[in-house]
Amino acid sequence: MGAAECDLEFHADRVAEVTDGEYVAVTQDTFVDMAIDAFRRFEPRDDETTVYYLYVTDNSDRLVGVMSLRELLNAPEDDVVEDHMVTDLVTINADADPEAAADEMAARDFPALPVVDDEGVLVGVLRTDDMLEVLEGEATEDILKSAGFSFTDVKRSRSSAILESSIARILRLRLPWLVVALAGGLLAGGVIEQFEDTLEAVVALAFFVPVIMDMGGNVGTQASTIFVRGLALGHIDDRNAMRHFGRERVIGLLIGLIIGGIGALAAYGWRLSAGDPQAGTIAVVVFIALVSVCVVASVVGYVIPWLMNKLGFDPAAASDPLITTVKDVTALLIYFGLAAFLLQELL
Amino acid sequence: MGAAECDLEFHADRVAEVTDGEYVAVTQDTFVDMAIDAFRRFEPRDDETTVYYLYVTDNSDRLVGVMSLRELLNAPEDDVVEDHMVTDLVTINADADPEAAADEMAARDFPALPVVDDEGVLVGVLRTDDMLEVLEGEATEDILKSAGFSFTDVKRSRSSAILESSIARILRLRLPWLVVALAGGLLAGGVIEQFEDTLEAVVALAFFVPVIMDMGGNVGTQASTIFVRGLALGHIDDRNAMRHFGRERVIGLLIGLIIGGIGALAAYGWRLSAGDPQAGTIAVVVFIALVSVCVVASVVGYVIPWLMNKLGFDPAAASDPLITTVKDVTALLIYFGLAAFLLQELL
Repeated sequence: MGAAECDLEFHADRVAEVTDGEYVAVTQDTFVDMAIDAFRRFEPRDDETTVYYLYVTDNSDRLVGVMSLRELLNAPEDDVVEDHMVTDLVTINADADPEAAADEMAARDFPALPVVDDEGVLVGVLRTDDMLEVLEGEATEDILKSAGFSFTDVKRSRSSAILESSIARILRLRLPWLVVALAGGLLAGGVIEQFEDTLEAVVALAFFVPVIMDMGGNVGTQASTIFVRGLALGHIDDRNAMRHFGRERVIGLLIGLIIGGIGALAAYGWRLSAGDPQAGTIAVVVFIALVSVCVVASVVGYVIPWLMNKLGFDPAAASDPLITTVKDVTALLIYFGLAAFLLQELL
Repeated sequence: MGAAECDLEFHADRVAEVTDGEYVAVTQDTFVDMAIDAFRRFEPRDDETTVYYLYVTDNSDRLVGVMSLRELLNAPEDDVVEDHMVTDLVTINADADPEAAADEMAARDFPALPVVDDEGVLVGVLRTDDMLEVLEGEATEDILKSAGFSFTDVKRSRSSAILESSIARILRLRLPWLVVALAGGLLAGGVIEQFEDTLEAVVALAFFVPVIMDMGGNVGTQASTIFVRGLALGHIDDRNAMRHFGRERVIGLLIGLIIGGIGALAAYGWRLSAGDPQAGTIAVVVFIALVSVCVVASVVGYVIPWLMNKLGFDPAAASDPLITTVKDVTALLIYFGLAAFLLQELL
């Protein structure tokens, strides 16, 4: 699988890093036949580079127009390009995020877009064939990172590279976040220890630990997935982050009320059929704990990746074990704390 | 956000569904000047369609060569295209998977590839700008599905659509797998109930339920992520699936031994400092349970998406709650079963 080793150059933080410097540009006063000649003489270094457009600039290298090759061939040879060029330009800023730029290109159906700096000077061309690699790499990286793969060397995040790496390397990628998750799990166990007396009095409380942990995990993963993906594609930004956060809290509460209701009914039926005199109290505790864990999980599932992003870390990485620990500890505290309070006459 | 409503046409199961029927083709005996004329006269329905290549066919419409527009302009006008065309062709089969085709295009840096049927007849052109949409959509869909979003209407899986949908619709997407996870969590609680006597005798056993569940969840997610992504990009297929499965089991065992060792040491120290006379036994139980859950989670994390795929379902969907339930039930059975056996003198 040597191919996996040689085509990994797809990670980029700025559009400028994937911009192609090979393009054909002329000034706006060039005649059409000279422009066709410029195009004919153009010899790209990489033989496979395909040229789609003629870019037209003013005397300060600022991009003022664009013509497709077909438009160029159909224009009268002794007109100047200025008379036929398209001036309604779609450009990409050199500092933009490549994944957001890919999203823009996908929505617009252009095979290439000109890249300009803050002054509007043409600095290169962004091609969809190059973006394809960036996008696939970014998506794979996001997916793998959110599953707790730690990348210090992000260029290796291609799926085939992960599959074919040595086992020692795979362990280095997978173990770090598992150790964090291990510490988080032990911490959650420490919360249970604080309520040892309550648990001894009502052992049945332990039966609902898995469902409370599972629900928090699932709701938190959904919330962080929406946030991380929305951020990567540019659908979530500083302007609308608070509005999406508000929605996510409402959704978390509604999910909690529905799931909590179903869970409490199941818990009540279960304990009643087991002849447990605390069936009603346990059902109330399970209901409140499930509502709480859904709200907490949707909040931390959104806030932790947001904080990671604000602090300059990749929001796709590391979120999972942190979210798991926070929602486990919070949910178990609420669950056992409430149980201890409501069942205190037994202690 | 009306934009999210109108550009969702990106989901496809076969390359043929995203193939563009607008291209310029001539037979191999066409003169260069006539070919340039054909290109000049070509009027795509969509004004934004850019043409990159001239495709050359034989009299049975089979693709025999290709010329870039630049090569065409540089060829002598009274030669036939056969003398200048490239015959070393890279083609995509119309029945191929779009995500795998995108992977192929990304690796090759072509802006468009000709699509042929099983007889080699040219049926259309696959453009990177269209693939960009497919790839972004597929990646988003894979990511969202693996987080437990249920899609009956896959065209709506674009991140912006999820963000902007009505709350009622979001609940319909998110709740179904959460209800399955709820049932799985209750089932795992039922396993604990079977060992109520053991738990009553040694309440400290409950303290390690979170760490065992968390580790299984994380290892299972890593295994299924690698499998689902590898399958989507064509890096895992029937030929090498068993080999990757064998590797995943070895990795699961190694992770289990390392995480189990650390977890058992922590458990021993914790219980010893709490003055628990069963500290040693609990450490052994925690070790074996952690090793088991890591192996089971890596196996079911790989096998469940594989089975889903074999049965014709999307492997990215539904895997998570099923994997969670299987690994929770198995791990808790092993953990409490072993504890009951080793601590039986106490009962």
